[in-house]
Amino acid sequence: MTGESVLSRVVRILEAFDPENPALRLSVVARRSDLHIATASRLVNEMVGLGLLARDPDRRIRIGVRLWELASRTSPTLGLREAAMPFLEDLHDVVGHHTQLAVLGGREALFVERLSAPGGIVNITRIAGRLPLHASSGGLVLLAHADPDLQEEILAGALTRYTPQTPHSAQQVRVLLAEIRRTGYVFCPGYIDPAAAGIAAPIRDGTGQVVAALGAVLPNDAHARAQISAVRAAARGVSRALGQAL
Amino acid sequence: MTGESVLSRVVRILEAFDPENPALRLSVVARRSDLHIATASRLVNEMVGLGLLARDPDRRIRIGVRLWELASRTSPTLGLREAAMPFLEDLHDVVGHHTQLAVLGGREALFVERLSAPGGIVNITRIAGRLPLHASSGGLVLLAHADPDLQEEILAGALTRYTPQTPHSAQQVRVLLAEIRRTGYVFCPGYIDPAAAGIAAPIRDGTGQVVAALGAVLPNDAHARAQISAVRAAARGVSRALGQAL
Repeated sequence: MTGESVLSRVVRILEAFDPENPALRLSVVARRSDLHIATASRLVNEMVGLGLLARDPDRRIRIGVRLWELASRTSPTLGLREAAMPFLEDLHDVVGHHTQLAVLGGREALFVERLSAPGGIVNITRIAGRLPLHASSGGLVLLAHADPDLQEEILAGALTRYTPQTPHSAQQVRVLLAEIRRTGYVFCPGYIDPAAAGIAAPIRDGTGQVVAALGAVLPNDAHARAQISAVRAAARGVSRALGQAL
Repeated sequence: MTGESVLSRVVRILEAFDPENPALRLSVVARRSDLHIATASRLVNEMVGLGLLARDPDRRIRIGVRLWELASRTSPTLGLREAAMPFLEDLHDVVGHHTQLAVLGGREALFVERLSAPGGIVNITRIAGRLPLHASSGGLVLLAHADPDLQEEILAGALTRYTPQTPHSAQQVRVLLAEIRRTGYVFCPGYIDPAAAGIAAPIRDGTGQVVAALGAVLPNDAHARAQISAVRAAARGVSRALGQAL
């Protein structure tokens, strides 16, 4: 084996798929993963044989059910998700629209669960989707309790502005993070979409460490703030459930 | 590279983890995946480097968040899951206990979603868990609409008996399958646990093909049958939603 390892090529193949493109032709897989078509073909065939990928009747390739199963049955977020689900459901019954659960995934918020109402307000998160830490309510809660090195790295980087309301200076974000640590929640009116407001609160494990953020996305109107208490109470419920499970 | 491929060894390593053992020492990973400790160590290190596995502070190894993300963001069952979730939630509000969604995973029913009430009746399924096709309500619905070759293979194999109520002869299962195709649902009182009853109905995609089973698990008492209509209605709702999405 020369140069790059088989496994890093396999990861590049898996990275070729995204929610807008869940099924790809071999030539597109090869291009997106920057592999020779012969190499891509050989690896894809082997991955299909092992169930890591699947081939549709039209020969397009997608993620295999077996890979999903292997990754999900002992997923590192499964305990969190199972502890959170009853609270997400209760919150969803009360708030409507969207309730969701985020963890730190590298330098972004990774959404590991979401409940949505048909016709709920616009919400760009999806399950296994990502949002920047400085602009999303879940991300801000996670950033407020993250390693100081990560905080400095994010504050020193590009703070993309989605709307005029998005916090876009390091100073603005610093003030928000301090406020989150003091109050235990964040309220984000129109930070990502002018029509939507996000609310999030931290989930702590039995040792008191923040391990996730629980949030709601709802219409950005005069009623949005009224749901802050419900989000905070749900996050506390999940924290208590996690603590008891330890 | 001689003999077995890197990728099949990687799959064996992923298979070493299960819900009862989500975090394993390297020596246990090596033993369970039948690899030399040096080979296991090298592969595990590379997988940790790529985020496919993660190492706990106590050096135990578990599935990495990155692998979960790659497998989940374009999961083949995500569209189904998203279409089904509002109906699973409504059904869960009405029936309580457990509502769940199963697809065919090889020769077993693979559960891709579950909503559970704290204190709900005993239910051995879990997310990404499996149950035999002949004994579970979801499995029977999937088997009733599966390829005839798979049906014959299951009927010719061992039909494990969990309780005196479990269908355990090929003839019993054949009668059940015909009844499911005729009536559009199955009612399974005490097939897996004497205390629990399962109900399931098929979910069809826009082409009319059965792609999943939607079900409920509730106490095995005189009221259980009263929920059959609610399960059937929810399965029809998901089918309609899937058909519109095509």
